[in-house]
Amino acid sequence: MTDDDDVTPRATMPRVQVRRIRKASEQVADQLRALIIGGDLPAGAKLPTEQGLATEFGVSRATVREALTGLSTEGLLRTVKGVNGGSFVTTPSPDRVRDALNLAVTLLSQTNGVTLDELLEVREYLEIPAARLAALRRTGDTLREMAEAIPESPLELSLGTQFVHNRDFHKAVLHASENTLLSIAAEPIFSVLQTRLSRSEIGPAFHRTINVHHRAIHAAIASGDAGESERQMREHLAWLSPKYRRIWHEFQESGI
Amino acid sequence: MTDDDDVTPRATMPRVQVRRIRKASEQVADQLRALIIGGDLPAGAKLPTEQGLATEFGVSRATVREALTGLSTEGLLRTVKGVNGGSFVTTPSPDRVRDALNLAVTLLSQTNGVTLDELLEVREYLEIPAARLAALRRTGDTLREMAEAIPESPLELSLGTQFVHNRDFHKAVLHASENTLLSIAAEPIFSVLQTRLSRSEIGPAFHRTINVHHRAIHAAIASGDAGESERQMREHLAWLSPKYRRIWHEFQESGI
Repeated sequence: MTDDDDVTPRATMPRVQVRRIRKASEQVADQLRALIIGGDLPAGAKLPTEQGLATEFGVSRATVREALTGLSTEGLLRTVKGVNGGSFVTTPSPDRVRDALNLAVTLLSQTNGVTLDELLEVREYLEIPAARLAALRRTGDTLREMAEAIPESPLELSLGTQFVHNRDFHKAVLHASENTLLSIAAEPIFSVLQTRLSRSEIGPAFHRTINVHHRAIHAAIASGDAGESERQMREHLAWLSPKYRRIWHEFQESGI
Repeated sequence: MTDDDDVTPRATMPRVQVRRIRKASEQVADQLRALIIGGDLPAGAKLPTEQGLATEFGVSRATVREALTGLSTEGLLRTVKGVNGGSFVTTPSPDRVRDALNLAVTLLSQTNGVTLDELLEVREYLEIPAARLAALRRTGDTLREMAEAIPESPLELSLGTQFVHNRDFHKAVLHASENTLLSIAAEPIFSVLQTRLSRSEIGPAFHRTINVHHRAIHAAIASGDAGESERQMREHLAWLSPKYRRIWHEFQESGI
């Protein structure tokens, strides 16, 4: 939240603004977080003991503990037990950031804080360029990863397994783009859409087509043709959109 | 983190995999989080008391409290004091998600978990389409918001104020695109880049050009010309890239 959001304009006190009171533990967490972001407490640094921090901040140990628990949840601290233990500054891994964003986008989509149209739009902005970059940056490893996510005999697989393959294929394309930030932003979007789809009455014909599309995308990326990779991914997403539109609301109405 | 990440393959025990032990409070948080994501605990639902939860999960009140603190930090619970108080399920606001992503991207960029090239690439994928959408969806309000972020007399302003204007202009374009998810994904990227830039020796000529560019983008969006808006934004970002490339490493070497 920016400082502005904490400011409540009061009609009865013109030109005077008040700040929402923050709990002592939040203030301790805010200060430590700022020191971490600013680099004063770099990754690996050991924090003073709870008692030391309590004395420095002029608060109780319980308040310090609450602040440290919060920062651990954010992935900024790691607590090690034992003689050489303590709280160490750490930085969230890309995986952790992706998971947190996945959770947030899932919840926002349930409360309509994020709509289906928004998800479909942003997915195109990220996955179409990802296919292009993948064609330019592919390696033997990332091509193999993509190929392994396309099942040989799709019709012999359960629907659950099919969805795992779908997820792995889209993850592999993002991975082949060699841009971690692109994966962080795109994977949660794909994941929210796919979760809805996987809980619906989607049949084997759907997965047959998915496999045909994935093979075409893989072939284009393998050939290194950026334009063709982009085009194949665009067509795939355009084909998927009406399916999502049909299924999205079923799910919402079921209240799951 | 996916389940796969928690699995450690052991060379001495072929075909046997062990799972990393999770703390009791993490397990309690995991279960409550799953109930919230699954919709069993919808937004607004009141949780049982700490004592009630401790009995149900078979853990201590301290463990329950640690789990609840973690979920509050994630923005999934809100604690209200008083007679009608308790812990209520809430869902993170788009602002909160944006802030969390901002923090994560900042830290990842400091540890090279995310590189400058990645930031510049993803920024283009998001802000160029945002300018296009803004031209198609602009309203009197969002056009005014954009206009107000372009100072009339840029040279009379301090550099700090200039950067606030820059930020507000890019936020306003994202806002005008009427896609919350686009703002959530793009704002943190812009913000990390701008923070680095603002700590460097950038001069008034830079801000003079920025203002010329912003006026051109605003005019294109105001005229409703999607193609021209896209083109203006693309040119603006292409002009900015070498500036970021020059400044990024200065900052990193200074160790700040």
